[in-house]
Amino acid sequence: MTTLQPTPSATPASAVDAPAGLLRVGVDIGGTRTKVVAVRDGVVLARFLRPTPRDVAVTVGPLVADVLASVLSTEHLPATDTASGVDRVGVVVPGIVDEEHQRAVWSANLGWRDLDVAAALAGHVAVPVLLGHDVRAGLLGEHLLGAAAGVDDVLFVPLGTGLAAALMTAGRVVRGSEWTGELGHVRVVPDGPECGCGRFGCLEAVAGATAVGRRWREAGREGDARTVSAAVEAGDPLAASIWTAAVEALADAFAPVVATAGTRLVLVGGGMAQAGATLLDPLRAALAERLPMPDGVAVAASGLGEWSGAVGAAHLDLGTG
Amino acid sequence: MTTLQPTPSATPASAVDAPAGLLRVGVDIGGTRTKVVAVRDGVVLARFLRPTPRDVAVTVGPLVADVLASVLSTEHLPATDTASGVDRVGVVVPGIVDEEHQRAVWSANLGWRDLDVAAALAGHVAVPVLLGHDVRAGLLGEHLLGAAAGVDDVLFVPLGTGLAAALMTAGRVVRGSEWTGELGHVRVVPDGPECGCGRFGCLEAVAGATAVGRRWREAGREGDARTVSAAVEAGDPLAASIWTAAVEALADAFAPVVATAGTRLVLVGGGMAQAGATLLDPLRAALAERLPMPDGVAVAASGLGEWSGAVGAAHLDLGTG
Repeated sequence: MTTLQPTPSATPASAVDAPAGLLRVGVDIGGTRTKVVAVRDGVVLARFLRPTPRDVAVTVGPLVADVLASVLSTEHLPATDTASGVDRVGVVVPGIVDEEHQRAVWSANLGWRDLDVAAALAGHVAVPVLLGHDVRAGLLGEHLLGAAAGVDDVLFVPLGTGLAAALMTAGRVVRGSEWTGELGHVRVVPDGPECGCGRFGCLEAVAGATAVGRRWREAGREGDARTVSAAVEAGDPLAASIWTAAVEALADAFAPVVATAGTRLVLVGGGMAQAGATLLDPLRAALAERLPMPDGVAVAASGLGEWSGAVGAAHLDLGTG
Repeated sequence: MTTLQPTPSATPASAVDAPAGLLRVGVDIGGTRTKVVAVRDGVVLARFLRPTPRDVAVTVGPLVADVLASVLSTEHLPATDTASGVDRVGVVVPGIVDEEHQRAVWSANLGWRDLDVAAALAGHVAVPVLLGHDVRAGLLGEHLLGAAAGVDDVLFVPLGTGLAAALMTAGRVVRGSEWTGELGHVRVVPDGPECGCGRFGCLEAVAGATAVGRRWREAGREGDARTVSAAVEAGDPLAASIWTAAVEALADAFAPVVATAGTRLVLVGGGMAQAGATLLDPLRAALAERLPMPDGVAVAASGLGEWSGAVGAAHLDLGTG
């Protein structure tokens, strides 16, 4: 007789598991804009933007304090929702984040290195704050309230100025070494275009939104990645060639991850995902060509768009975000 | 103030967590040979081989019964170790295995499809048997008693006749969709060599031990992958070209996984790993070229060799093997 003796399973991140009634605030500090959401019981009650201060490395305390005051003002929430104050606050940033020790190790865009967020917020914010990584939190947000709801094995890749990845297996966001998610700086084209990181042929330099726009302009055209996707739809051959190179590079990089981790859903976000089917259809086909599964893998666009990181930030206590 | 509120963590698979004193038997049914180990408290007390019967799909019950009888005979263990009988038995097989429902879904080599192992063993084996996947169990074995001891983020890739992968994140073996681990059938070279699966340019068809040997013979030489690695060491240019193509394809496929999952150790096994530094050194260098980390990633050979799957099988109750 065979007896199934399952491994004691981790609690997967799920909105269902969240303590009810809590007012949760998520703050996603990006290179130029800070996105803020207030969530209660899985409902986004308010969302707003702030410009990210240039000196955010030293002003993150006042920034978060200001954001929390704004959430509690009637400007953003009905008074009935703020009576008990904010229960949970999560702050997420790009770059290298050490969630275990709650340190923002390095971020080129935000100009900080080994920032102890607890110390930076001391004296400014009374409620405990959790620190997370923007893309890992984005995947958590998509899993809780977005396009990855109900799917426990997900690869999430925002394609914007930068390009990073987050992986979910069995409902948990993967957090390995400090380099986890740096898929954008994997070399995919030997002797390929120069990357912002100083190396050549990185995935970000071929398939990031900024890179796609740059290649278009280097060929004498005007516009950005959005222009290129519109030109693809209009049948422009140059646009098609730049776009195809980006899609093929993405598929080359995603396919080994999907096959190794048994990923069921590839979720793309960022500026490039706004191209919709112009990106998703060829990406789905390119992945199917590379993968052994007869139907390839499901490919979809982020459901929360630019708010996924902030939504995940609001729920950092629920999972490895 | 920031308060670290860690996610409730799963118990990572670790020999330390195993109930003490149990006599554990692992059975790894391969295409031609069945490997068996008996383990108590992290010590391999006995290991032996059996030919895998050609009709194993119908004779798996008698095979496992025979193996257990052999373990309990003084031929393999001192009598003091068998007095209490076998406490745990795990059976692992290649192909597509659904651990959750304990079914061997498909295995080309073993000639079975949707085999209910509980039913197949009923009447033959009295002790409960857990079913697992050979490569996922191999990773568990390496983590418990082999070269991945103490490392919680590992990519394990046996390079033999076939080529499959298993991923560990945070001490847990990843089990996603039924295609999890089928890295060998990811297309890495468009219009590349034909694969046993009928498609072209699969990783297995470029970098599997069988493929390396075949390319060598197609070029008019004699021998197998072992001959090729010896010829590489002797400076043979044809061997170097075949070997380099294999190494580059492996690095192309591994790098995105390492960067996405934050893998700290790439462990290679199977026949190709017997080449030692002839494989590991160029693979380490090829990965370093592709990855953003200044030092690349650690690359090592399996510590348990062909016994890793059987060792993992003996411990399936301890982790997602």
